[in-house]
Amino acid sequence: MTPTVDALRSTLDGRWADVRSSVREQMSRFRPVDPDLSREEYRAKVLELVHELAATGQPHTGFSPDHGGKGDVGGVVTAFQALGYGDLSLLVKAGVQWGLFGGAVQVLGTERHHGRYLRQIMDGELLGCFAMTETGHGSDVQHLRTTATYDPATEEFVIDTPEPGARKDYIGNAARDGRMAVVFAQLVTRVEAHGADARSAGASHGVDARSAGASHGVHAFLVPIRDDAGAAMPGIEIGDCGHKAGLNGVDNGRLTFRSVRVPREALLNRFADVSADGTYSSSIENEGRRFFTMLGTLVRGRISVAGGAGSAAQKALALAVRYGERRRQFADPGTGQETAILDYRAHQRKLLPALATTYALQFAQDDLVAEMHRLQAPQADQQGARPDERAQRDLESRAAGVKAIGTWHATHTIQTCREACGGAGYLSENLLPQLKADTDVFTTFEGDNTVLLQLLAKNLLSNYGKGVQKLSPLGLARFLGGQALDAAAERTGVNKLPRRIPGRGFRPRDRAEQRRLLADRAEHLLAGVARRLRPALKKGADQFGIFNAAQDHLLDAARAHVDVLVFDAFVAGIGRAADPAVKALLETVCDLHALATIERDRAWYLEHGRLTAAETRSVVAAVNALCAELRPHARLLVDGFGIPEGWIACPLLEDPAAESGATTSVPEMVG
Amino acid sequence: MTPTVDALRSTLDGRWADVRSSVREQMSRFRPVDPDLSREEYRAKVLELVHELAATGQPHTGFSPDHGGKGDVGGVVTAFQALGYGDLSLLVKAGVQWGLFGGAVQVLGTERHHGRYLRQIMDGELLGCFAMTETGHGSDVQHLRTTATYDPATEEFVIDTPEPGARKDYIGNAARDGRMAVVFAQLVTRVEAHGADARSAGASHGVDARSAGASHGVHAFLVPIRDDAGAAMPGIEIGDCGHKAGLNGVDNGRLTFRSVRVPREALLNRFADVSADGTYSSSIENEGRRFFTMLGTLVRGRISVAGGAGSAAQKALALAVRYGERRRQFADPGTGQETAILDYRAHQRKLLPALATTYALQFAQDDLVAEMHRLQAPQADQQGARPDERAQRDLESRAAGVKAIGTWHATHTIQTCREACGGAGYLSENLLPQLKADTDVFTTFEGDNTVLLQLLAKNLLSNYGKGVQKLSPLGLARFLGGQALDAAAERTGVNKLPRRIPGRGFRPRDRAEQRRLLADRAEHLLAGVARRLRPALKKGADQFGIFNAAQDHLLDAARAHVDVLVFDAFVAGIGRAADPAVKALLETVCDLHALATIERDRAWYLEHGRLTAAETRSVVAAVNALCAELRPHARLLVDGFGIPEGWIACPLLEDPAAESGATTSVPEMVG
Repeated sequence: MTPTVDALRSTLDGRWADVRSSVREQMSRFRPVDPDLSREEYRAKVLELVHELAATGQPHTGFSPDHGGKGDVGGVVTAFQALGYGDLSLLVKAGVQWGLFGGAVQVLGTERHHGRYLRQIMDGELLGCFAMTETGHGSDVQHLRTTATYDPATEEFVIDTPEPGARKDYIGNAARDGRMAVVFAQLVTRVEAHGADARSAGASHGVDARSAGASHGVHAFLVPIRDDAGAAMPGIEIGDCGHKAGLNGVDNGRLTFRSVRVPREALLNRFADVSADGTYSSSIENEGRRFFTMLGTLVRGRISVAGGAGSAAQKALALAVRYGERRRQFADPGTGQETAILDYRAHQRKLLPALATTYALQFAQDDLVAEMHRLQAPQADQQGARPDERAQRDLESRAAGVKAIGTWHATHTIQTCREACGGAGYLSENLLPQLKADTDVFTTFEGDNTVLLQLLAKNLLSNYGKGVQKLSPLGLARFLGGQALDAAAERTGVNKLPRRIPGRGFRPRDRAEQRRLLADRAEHLLAGVARRLRPALKKGADQFGIFNAAQDHLLDAARAHVDVLVFDAFVAGIGRAADPAVKALLETVCDLHALATIERDRAWYLEHGRLTAAETRSVVAAVNALCAELRPHARLLVDGFGIPEGWIACPLLEDPAAESGATTSVPEMVG
Repeated sequence: MTPTVDALRSTLDGRWADVRSSVREQMSRFRPVDPDLSREEYRAKVLELVHELAATGQPHTGFSPDHGGKGDVGGVVTAFQALGYGDLSLLVKAGVQWGLFGGAVQVLGTERHHGRYLRQIMDGELLGCFAMTETGHGSDVQHLRTTATYDPATEEFVIDTPEPGARKDYIGNAARDGRMAVVFAQLVTRVEAHGADARSAGASHGVDARSAGASHGVHAFLVPIRDDAGAAMPGIEIGDCGHKAGLNGVDNGRLTFRSVRVPREALLNRFADVSADGTYSSSIENEGRRFFTMLGTLVRGRISVAGGAGSAAQKALALAVRYGERRRQFADPGTGQETAILDYRAHQRKLLPALATTYALQFAQDDLVAEMHRLQAPQADQQGARPDERAQRDLESRAAGVKAIGTWHATHTIQTCREACGGAGYLSENLLPQLKADTDVFTTFEGDNTVLLQLLAKNLLSNYGKGVQKLSPLGLARFLGGQALDAAAERTGVNKLPRRIPGRGFRPRDRAEQRRLLADRAEHLLAGVARRLRPALKKGADQFGIFNAAQDHLLDAARAHVDVLVFDAFVAGIGRAADPAVKALLETVCDLHALATIERDRAWYLEHGRLTAAETRSVVAAVNALCAELRPHARLLVDGFGIPEGWIACPLLEDPAAESGATTSVPEMVG
């Protein structure tokens, strides 16, 4: 029983199906732009599209209802994801404007910022930047070097770039279109002794600010960078990052501040404020915790990037699978007919496991979006109460993990799809080159993937903090692994079972067996890391050396944890499917995803006695069989993504024989 | 004892060191061009560079001394490889002009073509195309559809594109600059009955040509495509492939032929000819063998692409390693100092095994070039005698394998290097984007990598042909594997030892142990494939089904075979090193390469009882230890490639703190 494409799509569309439909209808005119445009033309075109997008009212939906939005946080991220089928420069520029810039004003600002700016931001009248990354500090943003020093004499902050490495870099919207920027800087207030003589004490600012004042860590400030005519404001030097691998419709630039003065109210003061006399106050006392609370509210950016990466992978697979069905090469010696390249096992191996994992990631992404919506949508925000910190931290961890795994998967999948289309896949007219080039940076922006996985692993370890120090290594292991994964197991109905005995009745396509293998690995890796890192807690330990020696282990533990989350999300998603034919097909896709994941790590399962050699070979055989089983449904599976035809139409999908009437007719007589 | 960079470079430079030096000196002005050039400007710029290159006299060296060349086949390919440090559009356009177009005229043509064209081709006065690939047939070129039908009435060939899928596609030099093309087409002569009435019989040409005439398979023809003014010749339609992922300085185009007439002498007739009356003759009777002999002479293209890919990977590693040493992120809690990112194990894991394999591939490449030189340089060509067919076929196999493994390695390595440089790696000013985009097609042009590995595997199997059918499976296995690898073992002095007993005294850094593991795997995989494919020889067998079920196995066998070849080349190269410090360093690099290869396939070694779990873990530990051991030499190792500084200078390599005098000085007083 084969499901209809509509039934499959509707299952995939999930909770925000209406948003997806409206994006498909409203926005399919935003298809990829001509790759031959010059950089300036491309930027101008994308700016035009940003304004068109604002005119649809779609970007408003994510903002607070108090200021003309709809508070539909999940909806706006889902829409963003669907935009990923179109031009990715538009996606990213929209993400900078409404997600990062607008999002920071909404989430880190208070009414004094909201009333004045949100409407203009939603309407695209005020374009802005999110100026966090510096030339010298990208991953370690807690230690960025830009300073904002409060001057009580004028009730202003003075923003400075104290050294070339503190220049804000790669900032979207900065090189051409932005009028304001949310600037992240070390907030410094003068120590009282210097308060009376603020102006002359200014000479001691900059890198040595802490010696002359009190530093309170990184905070965000709203800084005008251009006047209405587009000229840089006094004291602001604006550079252009120039040509990039992709996303050339986005104007990334560099900002240097030379004693730029902004009023005291420019501080986005939801979590901390400075009074007129220079007294600093915050509802969160610990500086590190305050910083991560601020950063955490921006989790939406990471979730959005993961979503955009998913759409890009889906689009690449739609192109490669349809080409693989149409393209024939080498005659079958039995029939004399040329074989469709997707009928070759090697070709199926390239595309179908990647397709199955793309399905799995779509469900994981939907879970993330739903959880973010639950935590961030206005109805959840009870009169400005602090968000549920534990749930928020958990969401950040999952977002970090899914973003890392999802964007690497996209990069790898798009590369594979390009190769699977041969020379045709290298031509820009066939869309894959742009897709590859545009998404390539997804693995390192909005958090470098390796750093994100470390963040995830550290959160997993620290969630349980001091409480577990008393446990034996084994007890610790069970505790750590169990806590992190049991909740999910309950949610998906796949119960946690005792570890299997290798060599006994292995059933690769048993869902509980798959979960046991994945979860067992995640638990074991995490416990091992915990054990290896424990000596670092001792006084005088070589913390860096201990951490560094375990770093690959730590990253494996994080990856394995995400594997379980993604698997669980897939299983839960199948559980929600109403149509039995859809359910049956998705069960097969889930088998392929799970077994391809286990196959990839089969050395680990062998090394740790979880699977025998005969069992890992049966995993390989099952992956092959599943590829053959899903081959007839490959087209249906890519059609299920519901990518508007207008966004993928290209010569690659056309049969050259259909191009003209000549086809197999006899050519004209020779002169 | 650390070697000097000069000693290391001189070892790597090898036999054609003088050619490399002269390219470094002469051509370092050909650095990558401005990525903001429009497509037309870029094409014009690259054409200009092609003429400059011709003026150096360098491209002449590969051609026959009889016509002004030097017959230095190995030297010209080495020079081509060194050009890979510069602009890759120039590399590819030069490759099309002198390697493919000029090479085809030299190798497939005879004196009547050489005398008339070679000088002009060498000088770049006559620019040409290599028109093999068609829209519908890229990999299966034996079945391409363009026809060249001999018309004895006028003593001409009539070239036709009988259907849209037969259009020549992706042809370099076609869209803008080429004046002639070597066109590959099915050669058809009329059957005698129709000879007298040639003109009216022309109506039955095209796809049905074989019914009206005798088809002799694919041959090459020299066809003018543009007049001196640049207008398309009558009957020739020229299209433009437009914008591509990379290599936009190369004008790839499409050619359609509408009854284009060329004289009988346009046939490149080294291996076959048609007399004035239409009688076909060839020194090679079998059509398939004739075709592969013609293709085989063009092996230079594949070897050149592998070389270009190697240079690109080297350049990417030079950028990423130097950035990794300079870039610091996150403070070491012990010292408070920020850590250089290359000091992190995860970062070393990304770059250093790739660097080791890049070394290994360089030696494998040099072996290929030397063998090609031995077979193809004029002194080897005794009065037009047919080349040593066995040696030629062996070279083709090795070229196919090294090209496939080398270009995949380059794609993967450049991607990794881009990510290892974060946002900076995404900016075109830092060279990595262009490197990635330009080389991406290397995996699928000059033979799709998957198809090439199949070709290699089939050659390995068929070399031994019918003689082995009588052997038992085990005997077959030993025979196949042994024959293919024993010669190499003798050459490198690493003797073939009996299979090791797992669990007993494993020494991961023992060279013989490493080879035994690699060779054992290659033998076992090949024997297994042979066994699985044997039933296909039976009458009535489902040949496609049997082949397809074993396809992934076949590809693994090919890859494993190349792993052994590459390892052996590295070991032999170390043996040639004169400087003991160089030798010692290379031994460590070779350990890392070999063990990273074994680590990658450790599931196989476990599944097949070749290594115990404790042993594979010791392989992983050894890879980690080797990364740490080579870390202090990373800069030396990339400097050893001898890439001229002018070709890699970019902001990525500059310390931002050194950019201005401001650095850590106190900023100006605040207003």
